[in-house]
Amino acid sequence: MQTTGTAPEQPADAESRRLELEERVAADPAAFRIMTGDRPTGALHLGHYFGTLANRVRLQRAGVELFVLVADYQVLTDRDIVENLAGHVEGLVADYLAAGVDPSTATIFRHSAAPALNQLMLPFLSLVSISELSRNPTVKDEIAGSRQAAVSGLMFTYPVHQAADILFCKANLVPVGRDQLPHQEITRTIARRFNERYAPVFPVPDALLSETPLLLGTDGRKMSKSRGNAIALSATEDETARLIRRAVTDEERHIAYDPGTRPEVSNLVLLAALCQGRDPHEVAEEIGSGGAAELKRTATEAVNEFLRPLRARRAELAADRAYLRDVLAEGDARANALAERTLTEVRAAMAT
Amino acid sequence: MQTTGTAPEQPADAESRRLELEERVAADPAAFRIMTGDRPTGALHLGHYFGTLANRVRLQRAGVELFVLVADYQVLTDRDIVENLAGHVEGLVADYLAAGVDPSTATIFRHSAAPALNQLMLPFLSLVSISELSRNPTVKDEIAGSRQAAVSGLMFTYPVHQAADILFCKANLVPVGRDQLPHQEITRTIARRFNERYAPVFPVPDALLSETPLLLGTDGRKMSKSRGNAIALSATEDETARLIRRAVTDEERHIAYDPGTRPEVSNLVLLAALCQGRDPHEVAEEIGSGGAAELKRTATEAVNEFLRPLRARRAELAADRAYLRDVLAEGDARANALAERTLTEVRAAMAT
Repeated sequence: MQTTGTAPEQPADAESRRLELEERVAADPAAFRIMTGDRPTGALHLGHYFGTLANRVRLQRAGVELFVLVADYQVLTDRDIVENLAGHVEGLVADYLAAGVDPSTATIFRHSAAPALNQLMLPFLSLVSISELSRNPTVKDEIAGSRQAAVSGLMFTYPVHQAADILFCKANLVPVGRDQLPHQEITRTIARRFNERYAPVFPVPDALLSETPLLLGTDGRKMSKSRGNAIALSATEDETARLIRRAVTDEERHIAYDPGTRPEVSNLVLLAALCQGRDPHEVAEEIGSGGAAELKRTATEAVNEFLRPLRARRAELAADRAYLRDVLAEGDARANALAERTLTEVRAAMAT
Repeated sequence: MQTTGTAPEQPADAESRRLELEERVAADPAAFRIMTGDRPTGALHLGHYFGTLANRVRLQRAGVELFVLVADYQVLTDRDIVENLAGHVEGLVADYLAAGVDPSTATIFRHSAAPALNQLMLPFLSLVSISELSRNPTVKDEIAGSRQAAVSGLMFTYPVHQAADILFCKANLVPVGRDQLPHQEITRTIARRFNERYAPVFPVPDALLSETPLLLGTDGRKMSKSRGNAIALSATEDETARLIRRAVTDEERHIAYDPGTRPEVSNLVLLAALCQGRDPHEVAEEIGSGGAAELKRTATEAVNEFLRPLRARRAELAADRAYLRDVLAEGDARANALAERTLTEVRAAMAT
């Protein structure tokens, strides 16, 4: 079956589930705790922003409690990243705050500072089988795509680590992209099995699927820093312009939003539309027969305008590294205290 | 090939390696740190004593520093054990001390009290592949022998946890039975890879193979509490007598030490000989044509005599639970402080 739009193909029940969850959040936001996070592999880009960051900020502003994990123990195998890990971590915190995450109510923290969280991995590892870990399609993909001859134990057990990330703070809502649903299923399995086998300690968290259409890189492929096709939140206006100028388009002069047949052009339209908060068809119509040059001019202006206040805040934040470190230290302390409490509960439940 | 003795079949190089290590230990015991441990699954028995416990005490008395791990995070899947975990843990500490482990120089501690040790699992998991973990013959055996349809992630990653157990305290000598050699090899691999990839933080520990012949249970099978064929260190003299009275023997009246053709009788002879510190052939000759009854009487007396002082000490210790808890608390604190230091070194090494 051919996809005819950039919107992720969601089964009807997943979509109705999403709407139901959104309604429950709107009715009683204080009943929800969200867990999200990123691996500190470099600057966040617009794919991250529209894919997840904007959603986190929206939910936090609606009154949902937010936990944001800087997954610094999941980048250990990447030598290039580890060499400037502290810098990457601070950059990530600056991105979060600049995007609107409010550290007075959100907890931003690191794996490496929450030993009690990591310790939860051990009881959780006892609750899943290696066949379940092997069946996980995301792990399968990673195995297939890996340039290494083998997959590390860390990659293999990653969904169990993620279960610890989510369950240590008893998050009950996890915003995910479709590709993360299987991971999320392992977390739900672990929560359910723990509760059944020992005592009802954990919520079985719901996955909240993103409704944002997928934003691709400037070459029409998945947006990724390593492919050089990603517009970083922290990029300058000139860097942004240069990247969009080099973007792939097609021969047709008339601009339309038709992701199925003209993915690259439609992706630039979508980029502009997301930044302007408009419908992509309307944006395309406005450009009309202005061709690729006009499209790129519109997209560049839209991105730079949209990111201007965020970039200004980010520059201020990046200049105050002591503040970033304070935010992180406070989040680390809060997260670890919570993890300690959960670990105590877990041990008490297992011993009775 | 048929084995003709109860002595484990060791390749010649493993045996010469053992002798070489023993010589090095004798020459400079303070240069060695030993890591050993047990899962708190119940009372230790004579198989444990002659298989490993006596050896630990011997090495400690020779001046080697001893770490003894109570692996309470490796019994989490066993509901029956977890239900009285604290009791099992205290019992194990009582067994150690009664057998002669000296807590003023040995560190007796628990997984659950050393979060920094457990945290080492994460970087270590990144250093081994799942194919390496799958190849491990001990894991293969456990998979084959498991009554569960599947193997848990905890069982699968156990050799990595064990690497953390050994390397957190930079132990350089690990007394093992032959069946544990493959686990030990994973620890050596992890230490080597970490040192090569990051910085020379860890010793590559040597496995010290046990030289004691294998003591079987009273039914001639592997000694194991769950089979009801094990003489617990803490058993009463009557319980001991009853267990040996029910032991399997054979029809032949003349008693001889010939494990190849008469395994059950020879095992009782070995039991008496180990307890008396004599050669099994000599013990068998003494019994001569006294038959099974005389053999059992000799074995019972030998065991009860041998264990009498240990059992007296153990009864005193078991009556002073506060002391046992103190020993453990002190060991826990010492181990975790050491694990913290090692973790800091590991993180520093990985980030530079």
